[in-house]
Amino acid sequence: MTQFEYAQKGTVTSLMRAVAKREGISARTLCRLLKAGTAVIPHNNRRSISHPCAIGAGLSVKINANIGTSTDETDLKDELKKLAVAVKYGADAVMDLSVGGDLRAIRSRILAASPVPLGTVPVYEVAVNADKRGGDSLAFDYRDVLAVLEAQAQAGVDFFTIHAGVTRASVATLRKQKRLLGIVSRGGAILASWMARNKKENPFYEYFDRVLDIAQAYDVTLSLGDGLRPGSIFDATDKGQLAELKLLGALTLRCRKRGVQVMIEGPGHVPLDQVVRNMELEKKFCHGAPFYVLGPLVTDVAAGYDHIAGAIGGALAACHGADFLCYLTPSEHLRHPSVEDVREGVIASRIAAHAGDIVNRIPAALAWDRKMSIARSKRDWKTQLRLSIDPDKARAYRASSQPQQSDVCTMCGKYCSIKLMECAGVVHR
Amino acid sequence: MTQFEYAQKGTVTSLMRAVAKREGISARTLCRLLKAGTAVIPHNNRRSISHPCAIGAGLSVKINANIGTSTDETDLKDELKKLAVAVKYGADAVMDLSVGGDLRAIRSRILAASPVPLGTVPVYEVAVNADKRGGDSLAFDYRDVLAVLEAQAQAGVDFFTIHAGVTRASVATLRKQKRLLGIVSRGGAILASWMARNKKENPFYEYFDRVLDIAQAYDVTLSLGDGLRPGSIFDATDKGQLAELKLLGALTLRCRKRGVQVMIEGPGHVPLDQVVRNMELEKKFCHGAPFYVLGPLVTDVAAGYDHIAGAIGGALAACHGADFLCYLTPSEHLRHPSVEDVREGVIASRIAAHAGDIVNRIPAALAWDRKMSIARSKRDWKTQLRLSIDPDKARAYRASSQPQQSDVCTMCGKYCSIKLMECAGVVHR
Repeated sequence: MTQFEYAQKGTVTSLMRAVAKREGISARTLCRLLKAGTAVIPHNNRRSISHPCAIGAGLSVKINANIGTSTDETDLKDELKKLAVAVKYGADAVMDLSVGGDLRAIRSRILAASPVPLGTVPVYEVAVNADKRGGDSLAFDYRDVLAVLEAQAQAGVDFFTIHAGVTRASVATLRKQKRLLGIVSRGGAILASWMARNKKENPFYEYFDRVLDIAQAYDVTLSLGDGLRPGSIFDATDKGQLAELKLLGALTLRCRKRGVQVMIEGPGHVPLDQVVRNMELEKKFCHGAPFYVLGPLVTDVAAGYDHIAGAIGGALAACHGADFLCYLTPSEHLRHPSVEDVREGVIASRIAAHAGDIVNRIPAALAWDRKMSIARSKRDWKTQLRLSIDPDKARAYRASSQPQQSDVCTMCGKYCSIKLMECAGVVHR
Repeated sequence: MTQFEYAQKGTVTSLMRAVAKREGISARTLCRLLKAGTAVIPHNNRRSISHPCAIGAGLSVKINANIGTSTDETDLKDELKKLAVAVKYGADAVMDLSVGGDLRAIRSRILAASPVPLGTVPVYEVAVNADKRGGDSLAFDYRDVLAVLEAQAQAGVDFFTIHAGVTRASVATLRKQKRLLGIVSRGGAILASWMARNKKENPFYEYFDRVLDIAQAYDVTLSLGDGLRPGSIFDATDKGQLAELKLLGALTLRCRKRGVQVMIEGPGHVPLDQVVRNMELEKKFCHGAPFYVLGPLVTDVAAGYDHIAGAIGGALAACHGADFLCYLTPSEHLRHPSVEDVREGVIASRIAAHAGDIVNRIPAALAWDRKMSIARSKRDWKTQLRLSIDPDKARAYRASSQPQQSDVCTMCGKYCSIKLMECAGVVHR
């Protein structure tokens, strides 16, 4: 039985209890959220996760870090380092998006090493297997798709991105309009290419009941992918994107009917004034399912700093219903990310999620800022450094520039406003 | 005559023409904005600036970089490097906040080297001079204040931060409430301490007419400082902050009456859901005067990454009326910033301003993103790198990880969605 099915029966599981404790809510409350489908716990029933989490309404906003090889960069050691760094700096989940090297071996190592839920995009393996068989990444059929899903579920993958919304109908909607950038999702592009060549419906859509069988058997959470997400701010919230989103809403109900946990993936490149509307549309069309957004990036020109462009959109999204933020690294649009890029991406995303948690009045988030401000008012540097989002960096910065008076910093030195106020006795706490 | 006075008479000056051209609007339109007081051109009439700018409603959002020595870090060469880097990466204005070393000599070198408007916080020099005279930074009176203003105006400073809103009344309002962090503005703290010791009114407030005389004579734009800005998200939008803001609104009218250009400074640490309200309150209380905000920072815990916390708040602020964003560097709350910190701070702030420009439909901003997306759709890497917000970094990233196929990048390699779509002929532009 899946966690969703237990919740339907009102059964509080040990997993719910563990996750609720970490979240600072009662297991009963979490069970109710799972029952309503407004929260999920991505956790394959074959796997044991030391740091499981729940994602959804009323919970702290979670973040995901994408790792994995590419066809150009296939060093497994690097990917394991990225996993360790992502987890160290606070990623709540990780996706292995490998498309280079021995995918099964890579995934197996990452699964073994990951203390957090692990997601994949199974169509990548389908395409890579086809390419290895005959040099043609599109030479696959629905049986290959189902075989990969079964094998990955059996291996312990906790959530699957399934691009079942890239259908003949939604692609036709997309083609009718002018987009600057057509399809920018790798999975979406593979499937749209396959459909164009074979003149057939998307196998993930056509065989969705078979997908659900597998997801239900292993309690793999389905993350319904946005294969038609905008890749330019000029393509945001267009008919193609919304046609897919509505379809994902219909699939959400099919998942729930079969006892399968489901969340929805979202954009992408979105101007800041369309972010809130995107959150509202998802909650409406997809029946309150958790929303997992990529950014959103609020401009197309921030290559080298897309973690910042994404944190801006992600923070506002998190205030208005986004439940799960996929990080972006400074490498986005430029190269396969380095270990250092992963660190920067995770931290930027955590800041965005935390900004949302503050607005959503998550008690632990508020307590963190309160403690920091109190430490600042006391010029208690040890506590300030410990409470910084990245204590290592904060300590290194402070060590690099030491003040003559140890209770201030070198920014203001003897003109530290907090110290001036204390000396003058003007403002007391 | 000041630019404001020229605008009152409907006279379009050569400065207005130059600035309007850069902004892509007509000089007549700019003149109208100046006349209404909803825009300013910070430009001392004694100085010549090769890159002047206008700040205000209907214009692209501008950004400021703070540089200057501290009592712990006094190397002028470093500050000149920071100036060069700030300007190279797109700062529209720079403030010299020096409090260490020979302030006049430092300012003179920075003024000579700066192609953009330069601002200062004159009370810093007042305090430093007093300290040099007798070891007591608070041993000054109003004559010292006016002498420093006159000397700095004569030297060519383009805009002054004047903390005239830190008055006995506004500080009393602040004291009546519980703040986690009382006064976090250096200028505000110096003045509040001085007032507490001397039991006198703030000289910038008491002698505001004399301040206006100097500002009018040199066309120094007054930036009315928020000495009582919140330094913790828990102190945001509180009575102390709003009492000062209302007072700044009254002073705005006095500036306009005397022909002096004026803008208003704003917070600070503000939860994301209070950012819009802060913009609306400023426009209402301060009669549409341009709003110059510091961040706002959406959390207190991002030390080491406050440029990101500030870009999040700044971007939303820029969409809702903020006209001028003061950057934050990764060093904020930790140390005097390095040259590299300045670069990172400027770029984060530019991303925030640009996100606002997109929402505000600034034609040049939209054209930039459009060109980037078109280059991306063509996999035209040369153009993509050139159009990136920091072409040096984008080129270095791409060079560090070279794909086997030169028309893609190492993130997706042969699974580049844009290339897949082109090959399949699915989505045409």
